[in-house]
Amino acid sequence: MPLLLPRARASQESVFARMSRLAAQYGAVNLGQGFPADAPPAFLLEAARRAVGTLDQYSPPAGLPTLRDAIGADLGVDGADVIVTCGATEALNVLALSLYGPGDEVLMLEPVFDVYIPQARLAGATPVTVPMTLDETHGWSLDLNALRAAVTPHTRALLLNSPYNPTGTVFSREELNAIVALARQHDLWIISDEVYDELYFGEKPIAVRELAPERTFTVGSAGKRLEATGWRVGWIACPPAGADPYGAGAGVAANVAGVRQQGSFCSPTPLQVAVAAALPVARAEGFYEGLRAEYRARQDLLAGGLSGLGATVFMPQGTYFLTAIYPRWRAEELVERGVAVIPGEAFYSQHPAPEGLLRVAFCKSRDEIGRALERLATTTMVAT
Amino acid sequence: MPLLLPRARASQESVFARMSRLAAQYGAVNLGQGFPADAPPAFLLEAARRAVGTLDQYSPPAGLPTLRDAIGADLGVDGADVIVTCGATEALNVLALSLYGPGDEVLMLEPVFDVYIPQARLAGATPVTVPMTLDETHGWSLDLNALRAAVTPHTRALLLNSPYNPTGTVFSREELNAIVALARQHDLWIISDEVYDELYFGEKPIAVRELAPERTFTVGSAGKRLEATGWRVGWIACPPAGADPYGAGAGVAANVAGVRQQGSFCSPTPLQVAVAAALPVARAEGFYEGLRAEYRARQDLLAGGLSGLGATVFMPQGTYFLTAIYPRWRAEELVERGVAVIPGEAFYSQHPAPEGLLRVAFCKSRDEIGRALERLATTTMVAT
Repeated sequence: MPLLLPRARASQESVFARMSRLAAQYGAVNLGQGFPADAPPAFLLEAARRAVGTLDQYSPPAGLPTLRDAIGADLGVDGADVIVTCGATEALNVLALSLYGPGDEVLMLEPVFDVYIPQARLAGATPVTVPMTLDETHGWSLDLNALRAAVTPHTRALLLNSPYNPTGTVFSREELNAIVALARQHDLWIISDEVYDELYFGEKPIAVRELAPERTFTVGSAGKRLEATGWRVGWIACPPAGADPYGAGAGVAANVAGVRQQGSFCSPTPLQVAVAAALPVARAEGFYEGLRAEYRARQDLLAGGLSGLGATVFMPQGTYFLTAIYPRWRAEELVERGVAVIPGEAFYSQHPAPEGLLRVAFCKSRDEIGRALERLATTTMVAT
Repeated sequence: MPLLLPRARASQESVFARMSRLAAQYGAVNLGQGFPADAPPAFLLEAARRAVGTLDQYSPPAGLPTLRDAIGADLGVDGADVIVTCGATEALNVLALSLYGPGDEVLMLEPVFDVYIPQARLAGATPVTVPMTLDETHGWSLDLNALRAAVTPHTRALLLNSPYNPTGTVFSREELNAIVALARQHDLWIISDEVYDELYFGEKPIAVRELAPERTFTVGSAGKRLEATGWRVGWIACPPAGADPYGAGAGVAANVAGVRQQGSFCSPTPLQVAVAAALPVARAEGFYEGLRAEYRARQDLLAGGLSGLGATVFMPQGTYFLTAIYPRWRAEELVERGVAVIPGEAFYSQHPAPEGLLRVAFCKSRDEIGRALERLATTTMVAT
């Protein structure tokens, strides 16, 4: 019998899928995987029910023109530079295959969102991670000197995430300016994963493409924006055609669409129609403001409860996750006791994870958060 | 400015996407890209409208258990060996990344469905094609000796397609037995693209996995089966866990799901729910029999019309395409005159295409087929 390739044999169920499976098995409250408890907004659902039965066949690999234009209008870019994908995961994979390969290194920060490393490896490249600093008093911070020191002649790209899953960091203008200067100095592409761009609790996050339009690919997600993570509608906003390194014409977007076409051909057509209709409504009706207000309240509920149990909680500036340290809780045991969270080690592969680090999602109902806190209180008493 | 990788710069709009774009631009009847004119069946659409708003979040990368079981029941395999993908295109791409890489060769037949070659290259492998024989009297046939001669010590996999797009060939038991013997002799994986498994006009196609379960991955498509090509629900039926080359456990399916997870994470959840509900209904209600009867009538209409205009038509044993030779028609001119078809050269890259070869789709309405024939008649008179 032939064998699968080593890169396939190394591919395993992700920690998110695994913890969700264990949560179902043990009847645990699932504060692990980042999908919301609430239903998507009615204006999105109604648009989908109308689209099903009207546009059900292949759409262009780059995306339905109406959706590309709607995303472009929302982001303030030209729709011609937008490529629609089956979720942000595919967007990141298409960029990995387009931007780096054998002999190339791609820089990313640790803790690292789980797909970045295996995608780099499937693309044939070498992922290099730089650890974030974690201070019990001041929380997470970027070590710019470590980032600069990690650049080599083989570095091709920098993979950023702001708001940052799992740390919740929103990088400041000063930090991003320094990162952009580094990318320009070494002629690196920037992949900016901004799927939580509308989920912030302080200053509005800065879109990296505004600082370095010529080299930045922005990754976005209708699933995160509109609370429909299973719909598989994400996007890439490419450097504008005017910044095309090959001269005039369709720019890099046409090639990126060509790679995407080999992956899943196109995104689900009726759901693209629905997202195209919903994006301007979400903006006009203040949907994101409502989301932020509600998630801030749930964040406070969760953070207050965890602190009360003795955990050190690091409040996020964005995303719907918080990180906390409580060395007595182990994710593998907690799920058996009825609470699923993600263990910190899942986000580390090249550096040691801070002891007792957990990622806890608050995109869950107040009831679920309350029940999880009750179960943690019982567990903590038993453990103490 | 950095450059995209050569593999990305080589990625272009597919001929199918391009001809559909040109068809829209010139108001042409689109007998090019293989999507049906008819709407998906009501039992599928109603299931989707019910699912939207109930299951909208991430589903497991391997697919919703209910859908895996429904596909397994339909194919006669264990649902645990089925991995759901975003369409058959992603299924093929996941298998390319799992089964072959740098230094490996993958054997396929020419004319070749357009994604096989670029996917092999993105995976780092070398595609090697063996031409089918085309005889004006007897149509298409497989050259088994040429296939045997093309195997080298680097060959890792054989990529088959039966019913075969674009030739319409359904391989016989004798041919498949010979291919399986070759694969066993050289210890090759078999990828069997069977997306047209229910679209046949003579003998029911043989599922290759029944002849070589230990080494065959079957690729299937709800989009092709249920006339919803834009829904992005396809599948891979993996060699059963009992044939696992690594011993006991979850078999190769778990690794294939791990690779798939890096591509698009999961398939659109509400559409998976709908397909899971629709697959047994389609079987019980004779949906595929109705589809075959209707497409046979449209095939006869198209074939009769093309023959009457002087083309040599090769009747398919399966798929919803026929091939024809008429050297005076050029696809690039025909689309400007109101009929989009796919030029034969689009399916050839390593061998010369038969002169005047065209692929014409009959998954279109009788009205569209009739209008296309009228326009071709006018074009033919002008050209004569």
